[in-house]
Amino acid sequence: MTVTASSDWRTIAESFKAALNSKIPSEWKIPDSQRPLPLDTSQLVKQCGILDVTEVAIVSLDATDLRDAIVGRQYSAVEVATAYLKAAAIEHQATSCLMDYFPAEALARAAWLDEELQRTGKPVGPLHGVPISIKGGSRVTFGADSRSPRGQGARDHRGVRVVGGQAYRGKGRDHGVDLTQCGRRWVWCAIMHLETDSFLGPTVNPFNGNLTSGGSSGGEGALIGGGGSVLGVGTDIGGSIRNPAALNGIYGFKPTSLRLPKGGNKSEMVGQESIAGAIGPMGRSARDMSLFVSAVLAAEPWKIDGSNVGMPWRPSEVAWKGGDKPRIGVIWDDGVVRPQPPMRKALQDAVGKLKQAEGWEIISSLYFTDGGERIKRAMAATDEPTLPLTKWIMEQNTQPRSALEVFELVKRREAFRSEYNAHFLFADIDVILCPPGPGPAPELGTSKYWGYTSIFNLVDYPSAVFPTGRAVSLDDVIESRDSFLGKDDREIWEAYDPAKFLYAPLSLQIACQRWEDEKVLSALDLISAVVRG
Amino acid sequence: MTVTASSDWRTIAESFKAALNSKIPSEWKIPDSQRPLPLDTSQLVKQCGILDVTEVAIVSLDATDLRDAIVGRQYSAVEVATAYLKAAAIEHQATSCLMDYFPAEALARAAWLDEELQRTGKPVGPLHGVPISIKGGSRVTFGADSRSPRGQGARDHRGVRVVGGQAYRGKGRDHGVDLTQCGRRWVWCAIMHLETDSFLGPTVNPFNGNLTSGGSSGGEGALIGGGGSVLGVGTDIGGSIRNPAALNGIYGFKPTSLRLPKGGNKSEMVGQESIAGAIGPMGRSARDMSLFVSAVLAAEPWKIDGSNVGMPWRPSEVAWKGGDKPRIGVIWDDGVVRPQPPMRKALQDAVGKLKQAEGWEIISSLYFTDGGERIKRAMAATDEPTLPLTKWIMEQNTQPRSALEVFELVKRREAFRSEYNAHFLFADIDVILCPPGPGPAPELGTSKYWGYTSIFNLVDYPSAVFPTGRAVSLDDVIESRDSFLGKDDREIWEAYDPAKFLYAPLSLQIACQRWEDEKVLSALDLISAVVRG
Repeated sequence: MTVTASSDWRTIAESFKAALNSKIPSEWKIPDSQRPLPLDTSQLVKQCGILDVTEVAIVSLDATDLRDAIVGRQYSAVEVATAYLKAAAIEHQATSCLMDYFPAEALARAAWLDEELQRTGKPVGPLHGVPISIKGGSRVTFGADSRSPRGQGARDHRGVRVVGGQAYRGKGRDHGVDLTQCGRRWVWCAIMHLETDSFLGPTVNPFNGNLTSGGSSGGEGALIGGGGSVLGVGTDIGGSIRNPAALNGIYGFKPTSLRLPKGGNKSEMVGQESIAGAIGPMGRSARDMSLFVSAVLAAEPWKIDGSNVGMPWRPSEVAWKGGDKPRIGVIWDDGVVRPQPPMRKALQDAVGKLKQAEGWEIISSLYFTDGGERIKRAMAATDEPTLPLTKWIMEQNTQPRSALEVFELVKRREAFRSEYNAHFLFADIDVILCPPGPGPAPELGTSKYWGYTSIFNLVDYPSAVFPTGRAVSLDDVIESRDSFLGKDDREIWEAYDPAKFLYAPLSLQIACQRWEDEKVLSALDLISAVVRG
Repeated sequence: MTVTASSDWRTIAESFKAALNSKIPSEWKIPDSQRPLPLDTSQLVKQCGILDVTEVAIVSLDATDLRDAIVGRQYSAVEVATAYLKAAAIEHQATSCLMDYFPAEALARAAWLDEELQRTGKPVGPLHGVPISIKGGSRVTFGADSRSPRGQGARDHRGVRVVGGQAYRGKGRDHGVDLTQCGRRWVWCAIMHLETDSFLGPTVNPFNGNLTSGGSSGGEGALIGGGGSVLGVGTDIGGSIRNPAALNGIYGFKPTSLRLPKGGNKSEMVGQESIAGAIGPMGRSARDMSLFVSAVLAAEPWKIDGSNVGMPWRPSEVAWKGGDKPRIGVIWDDGVVRPQPPMRKALQDAVGKLKQAEGWEIISSLYFTDGGERIKRAMAATDEPTLPLTKWIMEQNTQPRSALEVFELVKRREAFRSEYNAHFLFADIDVILCPPGPGPAPELGTSKYWGYTSIFNLVDYPSAVFPTGRAVSLDDVIESRDSFLGKDDREIWEAYDPAKFLYAPLSLQIACQRWEDEKVLSALDLISAVVRG
């Protein structure tokens, strides 16, 4: 997408919006007869009449089934690309979830894939024909250097290049899925937010348009949650995969930070190693999480990329402490019986819950050890206004620090990790089950508390979220409460209202010890199946 | 060892020296009749008459054979501890290699081990009865906080605790070798040096007392090289395992930095993650390197310690690109035929040799991003003078940096790593064979160039050194040379003189790609066996 050269963010933004909208054919625009859209647009892709019966069937599969159906010649890659181009366009009109869109490239690549399958009889890589959406965009300012939105940088992202086999292409290896095959790159619209906002307007929740889609991978969350993509790639340094996955009723997996490659990723965080972000998949099923990770690691990306460890994917080595089932530690109400106060307190102590305030202090101190200098410089280049939630995070224990100050914070981080590990080992469990946040999707502009997800960035435990199958209903009444742990606790408790949060999906989070990525995905498979009945 | 409370470093030093010397019984002192000692004291332990025939046999084994002999009841742990207590005392008198010494604890622990083996019929852990020496000391100043030398901190070092099973003792697991079993802790005497010096005087080379034992693990190097220890633990952030191992004719292994646990390690570098140090073994055989690493990783230290990745030791998975033999890339003269100038240059280009200047700039910029502030503070506390080589390293691109400046350096480091990886893959080799430094052990006070070892810290490749079996002789004549790459190149070239370097061992270095620790030790086994005939 070409954007006119200009240093003014409004000009860039308008040009960008126009270019994006012009790529959506008029027959894929939601007809006026269906407007205004309902509060819950989660079924719009399937029900608005733009997709035919076959296409509705296509967008109803998870990535594993879709791959099998394409390889088994049930659907062509072109049929799949067409179905998802339509679906993504529709979802964008409902939630404003796209940052960029590549219909021509997608169809050309899909046609090539169909020819290759015909010619060789073999799929091109483990994700042959599966469209993948990529978190890659940001506020328009972050692209000011190149006079194009940040999303363009996604093309070089190692996680994508490896799945696409480009890292090894020169050596004759080809893993078969590249970005053009993926069809399009949807890119998200905020940074270091648990919401997604930009010059395109906020990305809203497909289940309730008054609520946020979460962040920072909220574009991915809304797009997949609303049926506009089957598999996406997000990044997570405080909850940015798990939060939007949870809020949009889909699966999301944040691996141990060094497990998947991040080389080529472009963000204002590059070089900050004290708290390492992770890339990971977002999608419709537990098995799709494994599908993505195993495809990436099969390419041995660590041989080029310094950002990931040389650990192949070994799901067969998972062993449960409980024998044939995982031993689960619950660190909150179990939804059936609320523990009485003393037991509740004991539980909380045991899992270090009371330490989370310290955890938040450490991690938020380490996010922007440059005092947010890089972001401020990028913003200053075009005078784009800073969003309130960006301001908020930049005020959380943030200041420019010296290398020596960072050393001391890293020492505290390591001490925290050791203590957390000791608690986990003492509990003798396989997996922690806990909320992914204090509640369902919040109203726009109110998402502040990251603690339930960021704790697993701080201790670097692999963690995943899954939809329980439940959503907020008017039966989920407000409970009264006498005392609060603090200002944030009160604000978030008081924000709850079933009438406002109607239809918002309810999700849960699980986590295993650092490096136990295979284990957390095995647990995800088992636990989500049981919970969803 | 109790040291009187004082803030003056001379007082601490004198008290410390007296306490150390008082632990060596008079019958283990080298008799005046044997003084002055010869230039080459490498056979002194075996030939000075203090060890009996059985003890000489004991100190002639490598750790693997020694463990088997103890478990097979050929020697008791007490016999072994006694032999090595004598050997270490002798070696210290020859080279000044000890910082601390624990005869009483060693004998008590050995007696307990003998009883346990008798009682249960089973060895206590994978290194039952094998004495291990630990790098842990430093200049006396670094112990000023606790009024005791730094070496005391070694007790809590995770690498040691895990081998000793202490990390899991509370959970009923015991890996059997702990520090008291190890018999004594020999601790080295410098930091961020390729020499070893302290208030105890320089640690000299057992093969030539005018030469350095290298550094920073030079105490370990001299002790093991001279026969006073069978297996030691060092740390390496620029060559501090490989340099002293190479200079003293022993084996040394620097793993990938995150492969072995470093938690509990006490140094002025804690919290500096941009260039991570590694702990690793030093010893008498290639297989002893594997013995140590496999014992540590069998304890799964990553479950407690944040400083190492969850990768078990999997030597059976090593596969050579060349089929049944490793494909070796040589990046220097091969010792048989010196490549003609154009080929030599081509070779050098191919392996990125010309980039090492950039590599040194990056890594030396990242060593002390605090500007050496922590070290300066520790020195200031007792006014202990700074050694010239410490001053030298602190002047190498060192200054206090902001977090943002560190981010930018880390970006450069990552770019360098990616490029180096690409070169390695393009060469299609298993292992690099190269010098561990520009020459054999230098004269005292002249060791400056780290480039041959620090390059593998920068790219974080596992690497190991081994003795070729050759030593400098008068036949190794000075070669003339017309031009030099720079001041360092000329200085080091001109320093060579076979008469001065007589008897100094000649070693080589190998390296594999990051995370290929098993591969580098398999290659070490194969290549050192061939080279040594």
